[in-house]
Amino acid sequence: MKTLTGKELAAAIRAETAARVADGPQPRLAVVVATADEASLWYVRSIAKAASGVGIACDLADLGPGATATGIRETLERLSADPGVHGVMLQTPLPPGASAQELAAAIDPAKDVDGANPLSLGRLAAGLPAFAPATAAAVMALLDHYGVALEGRRTVVVGRSTVVGKPLAHLLLGRNATVTVCHSRTRDLAAVTSTAEVLVAAVGRAGLIGAEHVTPGAVVIDVGTNPTEDGGLAGDVDSAAVADRAGALTPVPGGVGPVTTALLLRHTAQAADLR
Amino acid sequence: MKTLTGKELAAAIRAETAARVADGPQPRLAVVVATADEASLWYVRSIAKAASGVGIACDLADLGPGATATGIRETLERLSADPGVHGVMLQTPLPPGASAQELAAAIDPAKDVDGANPLSLGRLAAGLPAFAPATAAAVMALLDHYGVALEGRRTVVVGRSTVVGKPLAHLLLGRNATVTVCHSRTRDLAAVTSTAEVLVAAVGRAGLIGAEHVTPGAVVIDVGTNPTEDGGLAGDVDSAAVADRAGALTPVPGGVGPVTTALLLRHTAQAADLR
Repeated sequence: MKTLTGKELAAAIRAETAARVADGPQPRLAVVVATADEASLWYVRSIAKAASGVGIACDLADLGPGATATGIRETLERLSADPGVHGVMLQTPLPPGASAQELAAAIDPAKDVDGANPLSLGRLAAGLPAFAPATAAAVMALLDHYGVALEGRRTVVVGRSTVVGKPLAHLLLGRNATVTVCHSRTRDLAAVTSTAEVLVAAVGRAGLIGAEHVTPGAVVIDVGTNPTEDGGLAGDVDSAAVADRAGALTPVPGGVGPVTTALLLRHTAQAADLR
Repeated sequence: MKTLTGKELAAAIRAETAARVADGPQPRLAVVVATADEASLWYVRSIAKAASGVGIACDLADLGPGATATGIRETLERLSADPGVHGVMLQTPLPPGASAQELAAAIDPAKDVDGANPLSLGRLAAGLPAFAPATAAAVMALLDHYGVALEGRRTVVVGRSTVVGKPLAHLLLGRNATVTVCHSRTRDLAAVTSTAEVLVAAVGRAGLIGAEHVTPGAVVIDVGTNPTEDGGLAGDVDSAAVADRAGALTPVPGGVGPVTTALLLRHTAQAADLR
């Protein structure tokens, strides 16, 4: 089984972004946070660090876990209206009563570098220019980087989230793949996932995908980042179990994750160029 | 094989809409046309007639086949801004150089009764309130009318258009079905469609779906309305060929079509109520 690491691709995207940024005014990414969730805060810090590395400014708007939906919306509107901010991202989870889908509508689509505004998703689905969610874009970038053909092939996405599964289905359709979306209510999941030449697990359950879910030779992309008891990350795929069946698998960590962060920065540089 | 006619359901939706409309100010639907295509003009006339039957005013804004994208956009903006208009619909086809997806963004989402604005599609995908395209909504209404279970079942949609295939995939996902989207580039279409407990053909190729595409007992919904040489309509499904295999099939004409028109009127009444 081939291991499809994301580190080299992420480094290449960061280098290209750094070169792009070096020529013009500094792009600025604003990340709105309203949680005390340690994994989320770690992720946001990793974005800020990566941004700094490529010459992108990253502001953290930390509203705290007590933030209200109104307060979050006003912050997103203010950042969207600020000509000095080029990218706006709303980190989840949000406090109870605040809907990420509804609030993300307050992000200017031109600054929606993580593709969270429903308008961005709709434009993506309609084949119009839009920022895709960075995670979904990272899956496509990895498939392209490793030369995985998609045209006419059977792809199965496990997970129907608005941030990964659904936009990814549209990106795959846009590349002429046949696309199946599965989820927690799918009956006989293994029977469905076994039809996949390319299988993407994006469901958030550690080790859900085992040998019985994978047809021999399939390319498997693991989007899962499930915290483990020892402070590490586990994917949605049981990598030991599928090692003898999959043709290729992305590792966790070190697969989709670094590419996601790199693409978020590329999107921010693009948003700064396009303004 | 059971025939799933749409006429009774359409009549019921029209009657309910007429009753709803009778209580308040008259809703008004504006249909923008920029084509000389006879089938399209026939469809628009059928909408106007049906609207009249339930007490909804229907204005035709016929810009002719020489209309420009700018002219169409301005018309859609004017109608969206007109407080006397409750529903706005853009009929296809459009003149060369005019993109329905791009122009539909000019329709106020609150009046977008045929779900053509990319924002409506994105909101649908994100699980937020939005008008679905009437055809996609009609497929769901027919499945519900005939008590076809969807939860956890394998559904296959043939066709990935922005007006039917893609929004329908989201509506089916929203009902916890497992959803596969196929299209012209799908390899071995029959192998994929044969996995369907519920199969929807929405591709616009007369008779594409034959016996080999249908697993015994499947519920088959035929969205196709392909003009025949004798002036009639043919579906995407070869009904004679699948008669011995399908458990149920919608006829063409008389299946999805009348329900689509009825739902367009219901949406217009809802838009008038919600304004």
